[in-house]
Amino acid sequence: MTTDGWGRWGPDDERGALNLVDDAATRRGVSAVVHHRPISLGLPVATGAAPLADIRPDVQHVMLRDGGDYAAGLKERPGFGFADDMVMIACHGTTHIDALSHVWRDGVMWNGRPATEVTSRGARFAGIETTGPIATRGILLDLGGELSAEEAVTAERLEQALEAAHISPEPGDALLLRTGWLARWRSGDSGLEGWPGFDSSIAEVVDRYDLAVVGADTISTEVNPSRDPECALPVHVALIRDRGVFLLELLDLEELAKAGAATFLLVVSPLKIVGGSGSPVAPTAIV
Amino acid sequence: MTTDGWGRWGPDDERGALNLVDDAATRRGVSAVVHHRPISLGLPVATGAAPLADIRPDVQHVMLRDGGDYAAGLKERPGFGFADDMVMIACHGTTHIDALSHVWRDGVMWNGRPATEVTSRGARFAGIETTGPIATRGILLDLGGELSAEEAVTAERLEQALEAAHISPEPGDALLLRTGWLARWRSGDSGLEGWPGFDSSIAEVVDRYDLAVVGADTISTEVNPSRDPECALPVHVALIRDRGVFLLELLDLEELAKAGAATFLLVVSPLKIVGGSGSPVAPTAIV
Amino acid sequence: MTTDGWGRWGPDDERGALNLVDDAATRRGVSAVVHHRPISLGLPVATGAAPLADIRPDVQHVMLRDGGDYAAGLKERPGFGFADDMVMIACHGTTHIDALSHVWRDGVMWNGRPATEVTSRGARFAGIETTGPIATRGILLDLGGELSAEEAVTAERLEQALEAAHISPEPGDALLLRTGWLARWRSGDSGLEGWPGFDSSIAEVVDRYDLAVVGADTISTEVNPSRDPECALPVHVALIRDRGVFLLELLDLEELAKAGAATFLLVVSPLKIVGGSGSPVAPTAIV
Amino acid sequence: MTTDGWGRWGPDDERGALNLVDDAATRRGVSAVVHHRPISLGLPVATGAAPLADIRPDVQHVMLRDGGDYAAGLKERPGFGFADDMVMIACHGTTHIDALSHVWRDGVMWNGRPATEVTSRGARFAGIETTGPIATRGILLDLGGELSAEEAVTAERLEQALEAAHISPEPGDALLLRTGWLARWRSGDSGLEGWPGFDSSIAEVVDRYDLAVVGADTISTEVNPSRDPECALPVHVALIRDRGVFLLELLDLEELAKAGAATFLLVVSPLKIVGGSGSPVAPTAIV
Repeated sequence: MTTDGWGRWGPDDERGALNLVDDAATRRGVSAVVHHRPISLGLPVATGAAPLADIRPDVQHVMLRDGGDYAAGLKERPGFGFADDMVMIACHGTTHIDALSHVWRDGVMWNGRPATEVTSRGARFAGIETTGPIATRGILLDLGGELSAEEAVTAERLEQALEAAHISPEPGDALLLRTGWLARWRSGDSGLEGWPGFDSSIAEVVDRYDLAVVGADTISTEVNPSRDPECALPVHVALIRDRGVFLLELLDLEELAKAGAATFLLVVSPLKIVGGSGSPVAPTAIV
Repeated sequence: MTTDGWGRWGPDDERGALNLVDDAATRRGVSAVVHHRPISLGLPVATGAAPLADIRPDVQHVMLRDGGDYAAGLKERPGFGFADDMVMIACHGTTHIDALSHVWRDGVMWNGRPATEVTSRGARFAGIETTGPIATRGILLDLGGELSAEEAVTAERLEQALEAAHISPEPGDALLLRTGWLARWRSGDSGLEGWPGFDSSIAEVVDRYDLAVVGADTISTEVNPSRDPECALPVHVALIRDRGVFLLELLDLEELAKAGAATFLLVVSPLKIVGGSGSPVAPTAIV
Repeated sequence: MTTDGWGRWGPDDERGALNLVDDAATRRGVSAVVHHRPISLGLPVATGAAPLADIRPDVQHVMLRDGGDYAAGLKERPGFGFADDMVMIACHGTTHIDALSHVWRDGVMWNGRPATEVTSRGARFAGIETTGPIATRGILLDLGGELSAEEAVTAERLEQALEAAHISPEPGDALLLRTGWLARWRSGDSGLEGWPGFDSSIAEVVDRYDLAVVGADTISTEVNPSRDPECALPVHVALIRDRGVFLLELLDLEELAKAGAATFLLVVSPLKIVGGSGSPVAPTAIV
Repeated sequence: MTTDGWGRWGPDDERGALNLVDDAATRRGVSAVVHHRPISLGLPVATGAAPLADIRPDVQHVMLRDGGDYAAGLKERPGFGFADDMVMIACHGTTHIDALSHVWRDGVMWNGRPATEVTSRGARFAGIETTGPIATRGILLDLGGELSAEEAVTAERLEQALEAAHISPEPGDALLLRTGWLARWRSGDSGLEGWPGFDSSIAEVVDRYDLAVVGADTISTEVNPSRDPECALPVHVALIRDRGVFLLELLDLEELAKAGAATFLLVVSPLKIVGGSGSPVAPTAIV
């Protein structure tokens, strides 16, 4: 285990590898746009629409005012009727981005800060409100047709795929992996017992290219169950905690995969939930 | 009142003026990027952080698991501890985008559909999940230093401002107005009794240039109180209902205004809340 | 279908058959107390602890402050630490009482009022806050050992059971039926496809004795599926809508049944949820 | 500070002084009933209806199905329409009972258990689900006309009031104090800066008579601000933590006071919120 990322951007840094997304990285993303077509990578937000870990309550969407109220006799205030609503949503319960305060090991999180920075009041350090919007080059590796149910995607496999696609990642890039698992879950062909994904060797790839963001179409981005007997989620620890890399999870990559663009401008703008350990987002790929 | 927009994109259209955001509009947005710097236009999401209309409950952010639990003795499952959380948020209670199902007049909403399409189950027609991500050219008009407390911004005034800025909007553009009101509210200098904003004549500007999106740094985008004795929110009716134009509200335009870029790439990706009358968003301006 | 109850206590009455619970009825309940032992008839309130109809979200209990926060370093304000919490609960999603505004037929509810009295703002008429606390004699009929999976309990069967128990109900009494279904559901032996309970002939019993409250250990009190092809929940309609009788549902009658008391003082005090169509309660039987 | 209560009912006891509410205490309560009239001591449950400490979100009551939906075209499933709803409520945000897991001092709570028993998962020890229903004799002391804005009610004052009312409390009784503060708050005449209530000497009265429950018509039952520079809420600590006595807070004692009954049967049945630090309740006084 390396924690070389700690201190790389100063002892108080809360944005980690997003510091790598400089104007050159954003420019590279912008330059990747060919068709000028934005594609949402977000799942529908509705009860039952996303695979959920046990701890996460399902989405509830409720109306505070609706057309039925008027049908029942409510008068428009002159010339104006409206609907209003509220949503209750687990921050990691649909397509989302993890904050650097989301995970720790041995009680220590990103930049050597103690997990005790995160209490019922939220995260005092590295809450998702500190992240800021991300605009960088995205790279899609679509292994959806190749992976078995709980296959680990190794660094070697990734390098082969990058080479085959003639893509050389650069600092600040975002690497997205389509495993095909989410599509299978949505069609009822997969449960929650396991899924394919990165194993710890993804860290070598992250280090080699200085990636800022990694994502996938699964709950955890990483292969489940873990291959590491000493760590239940080693990719989370290696990327978020040790390197300050941001994870995007439960990405809906179906439309993007069909669009056939290997690189694109990826824009992700978390809700600035103060003290949040993550935020639901609908990332946008502009191909 | 004109409802000329109805049927313009077919009788079943739920995306209204976003149909104007074609690849040319997105390309125009991309071309406006100069500094390759993304700026969030979203407010912090926290209790007390946004001005709220009465009907809207304030944000609640609660932790489902946190560092305190581990400090209290919870064991990491091997090599891994984490925080998880949930947020309850009114869809129009922080920076947000209105769906076309948000408003109606005389019981009729966008495209002539009855308000009864919106019930406790949400909007069956024009819910925010139908919107898709928006990537277009944004235009910022900063009148923050000029407007009095409840001043109406007329079409004439807008045209003057556009001319002074040497900007000629094109179809599918997004026009954002900084009134300075949100900054005053945040510093405690303004209450909720009124604010400056567009009056109905904004519709002429929208029609002239075929704008797709209009936004401001206030609760309603339009001047409050209404100048129209027969309609409480005439701009909402004229833009959303009659023209299918999308409104962005409670935008935090402070950093964007300081950046000094009059045009930029605006990316807005609503959470795909099924049946939602709107969605909290943190729009991104890439300057 | 009779709606003879309408107008019985005046055209504006919202308390229906609870008008029958006069001081004599309460005295009768008090007189039934023998052992002076209170027994809760409420289910545990926790995620997964109650059988739920589809429309009802499961309970969420979240901590706003807890011992972990202090373990993580929060200082007691001098000499005082505390926990605080919040619960989100469907009003009919655990042991509960139905308000008279809960049901209607042909758009008309108790006392001839239109269902349009109930909107997103809650019930303007017969909300649960109008009910007041109930203290009356309770009668337990334990048919838990006798009923088949979806057996209808008829008036005749009830009369036999009352006769066998030497109980003659009086005006304002509460009749509780143990079917045994809830115990089977809790042990995983029953699903939600059906359960035993009253059929429409219960109305004859209610009329004969002028019962004020009826309850059972199932979701609906009445047999499911309905035996009436023209009404999905005929007991709800006949009792709540037509007679103003209150239903107690999802009662946990296990301990009461073991206590062996056929009559007891029943105390039910709904949370005064303004406009509520019901309230979670933990009714108390004092045996 | 004494912690003599610890161990009194065994080292694992979670019910504290409720062990004093035996059949004799319940019988005494039943014997106090004269008029056979139940009175609710619960506040209305609605946004804005209760005074709230900062940490507690206000009540939200939302409809999942209502009459407006049917007015908007929803078909009754044959012969049956209904309303359903959900409530979000802080466990201490309206009339409620505190669990013994609600408070601690120096990190230790009732029976010497560490505060770390209470985490994001709720209270593992002394959650409100362990309390059970309470049926005992209640005593009302109405000092509403006598107390100044932040007056401390001492043991001496209580004894005088009890003597004047010719009441001698017995083991397991519940002592309720009407200060008049809640009525003033509801009429807008009092804010949250302070209120009258018990000071620490109440513990002497509790000890003398072996009271099981203490309550009042304020947020904290005890005088605010605290008179004890070393403890912010000394009555909470002395009663809940040291003696296992249960507190009822935000009681609406207006109707009970008008009824003129000094003693009565008090029935309180907490929702069995698993791990809850308290429960909203509408206690019932049967006079």
